[in-house]
Amino acid sequence: MKNWLISPEDNKEIVISSRIRLARNIKNIFFPHKLKEEEGRDLVNTIEEAFYSSCNTTQDYSTYYLWQSDPLNNNIYLDKHLISSKLLSNYMSAAFIINKDETVSIMINEEDHLRIQCITSGLNLEETYDAANKIDDLLEEKLDYAYSEQLGYMTACPTNIGTGLRASVMIHLPALSMSNEMTGVFNALTQVGMTIRGMYGEGSKSRGNIYQISNQVTLGVSEKEILDNLKAVVNHIINQENLAREKFIKTYEYELKDRIYRAYGILKSSFIMDSAECLSLLSNVRFGIEMGIINDIDKNTLNELMVNTQGAMLQKVYNRELSDRESSIYRAELLRKSLNRQSI
Amino acid sequence: MKNWLISPEDNKEIVISSRIRLARNIKNIFFPHKLKEEEGRDLVNTIEEAFYSSCNTTQDYSTYYLWQSDPLNNNIYLDKHLISSKLLSNYMSAAFIINKDETVSIMINEEDHLRIQCITSGLNLEETYDAANKIDDLLEEKLDYAYSEQLGYMTACPTNIGTGLRASVMIHLPALSMSNEMTGVFNALTQVGMTIRGMYGEGSKSRGNIYQISNQVTLGVSEKEILDNLKAVVNHIINQENLAREKFIKTYEYELKDRIYRAYGILKSSFIMDSAECLSLLSNVRFGIEMGIINDIDKNTLNELMVNTQGAMLQKVYNRELSDRESSIYRAELLRKSLNRQSI
Repeated sequence: MKNWLISPEDNKEIVISSRIRLARNIKNIFFPHKLKEEEGRDLVNTIEEAFYSSCNTTQDYSTYYLWQSDPLNNNIYLDKHLISSKLLSNYMSAAFIINKDETVSIMINEEDHLRIQCITSGLNLEETYDAANKIDDLLEEKLDYAYSEQLGYMTACPTNIGTGLRASVMIHLPALSMSNEMTGVFNALTQVGMTIRGMYGEGSKSRGNIYQISNQVTLGVSEKEILDNLKAVVNHIINQENLAREKFIKTYEYELKDRIYRAYGILKSSFIMDSAECLSLLSNVRFGIEMGIINDIDKNTLNELMVNTQGAMLQKVYNRELSDRESSIYRAELLRKSLNRQSI
Repeated sequence: MKNWLISPEDNKEIVISSRIRLARNIKNIFFPHKLKEEEGRDLVNTIEEAFYSSCNTTQDYSTYYLWQSDPLNNNIYLDKHLISSKLLSNYMSAAFIINKDETVSIMINEEDHLRIQCITSGLNLEETYDAANKIDDLLEEKLDYAYSEQLGYMTACPTNIGTGLRASVMIHLPALSMSNEMTGVFNALTQVGMTIRGMYGEGSKSRGNIYQISNQVTLGVSEKEILDNLKAVVNHIINQENLAREKFIKTYEYELKDRIYRAYGILKSSFIMDSAECLSLLSNVRFGIEMGIINDIDKNTLNELMVNTQGAMLQKVYNRELSDRESSIYRAELLRKSLNRQSI
């Protein structure tokens, strides 16, 4: 499995990453929100023990206990989509286990006792699911999962019950966004039991034209059906996006180049930039790379910048809390240094 | 005298150009708006004869008869502030004589029979006036000016009567504009008999933060008084602008650099740009040069771009009328080519 920040070699690939999440709970133990602090930490120990005793490649994994670890560091994992803000809010009894490549993260005492997550680059749902499933099987040998013959895996929230599986794909849809076709996409996806969210911010408004498409239904369908349906839907959206792109370049060649090169020019020269503008400009440059218009920068650099300009990494570099203005100044500096051979 | 497009060596100079205009009319001939076409052309001949027979350096001058000349070409002189749109609208009987350096232009049958103009770079009112005055003296030897002992030189519009002198200075005031202090400047200037106008557009709204300050009163004051007053006023405004600039760089260093470098970045990378945005961005870059923030471009290039992106030059290069979209595309191309060593 490849870290999602490392883009597939094909620049035309508009799917950024694929993610699988399995929600599991341990029998006869309260769900995390009902657990006392000590009980929560005991459960962390139990799960950790089960994991490390069954896992063959223990040397690749590290555990972070949130009540001990560095908040700045944790926020970076948040920006990389490896852990959730829900986990961080349970910091007194939550923990996570993560591998070196940062493709696997096991959250303990998030909404459920266990959230097994695998995230890889590109459209890669089967391989990602297989990796998560393997970890799930290993843990199931040691742990007594809360499972009902009728309903499947029990979860804290009924929307996850059954398979406990959420499969999702992070996808870059600038042409559909620019041509105001996202509302249609939203409605169509809802009708086939899928959810689409802006990657940054839960609402339908997406920053940087990056969306996350995932299955809504977890009950009454098999894992294979969930993956197949999602894959079919994503491929359909990729086609729509590509059609919209072709139309754009035919009708608005100069407007498109203007938008893309201006974005690149501004990213290379600004001295103050907020996070929203940054994501939006990075999206335009990504669009330029995907269209073959910009050739002197690769998508890995963009992925890194997308994560590293999100605030947490900036705070980490300067090793302190930053005001919004400071973040905007350092963000602009990071962008200039990274995108210009010589810094201004 | 130096062509105004060639900037003084001092980058801190915020006065772009100084201009002198003398309005003169010939005795016993109707003002231009009352002249028949043929009478107008006869007058053109008379004045031309008077000029070339008295001028020592005839080889440096060319005459353009508007009823014969190329409109695209004339529009370029308009963009260079060497002729007026009023002259162009009288094209059936108007003409202009211009020297090689483009520092002298004599308009025939504009609002008055004669408009002697000299325009030079920087704050240079005396030298510019001397040049215009010399031409005026030469012409006066051959032509019988409409002159009243009581009022002075007679003109078609009473606002020019007396000296017929309009002295004006083109000045770049970004800091006063950004700090919303221009209204105060406007009011103060009106009270001391001066006029300030946006360089592009007659109203108080200026594109590109470039203003033209000129004397309002032409009657009851001597030429020297007019020049001295204007110079004093301009020096006062230069001081105010410099104070505003110091304040800016102290309080908003990053905001200022951001504005300046973004403008430069956009000018180097856009594919579509309208004239208003272009002037505004060029102003920001000019500000950067004047503040010593940008060092890899000189103001001559900016002056040329300011003129050459105004539409007429674009039409001339492509030798046809251009739609707004076409102009915006060619303008962006010109800017990219001129500001990047290699074109994109």
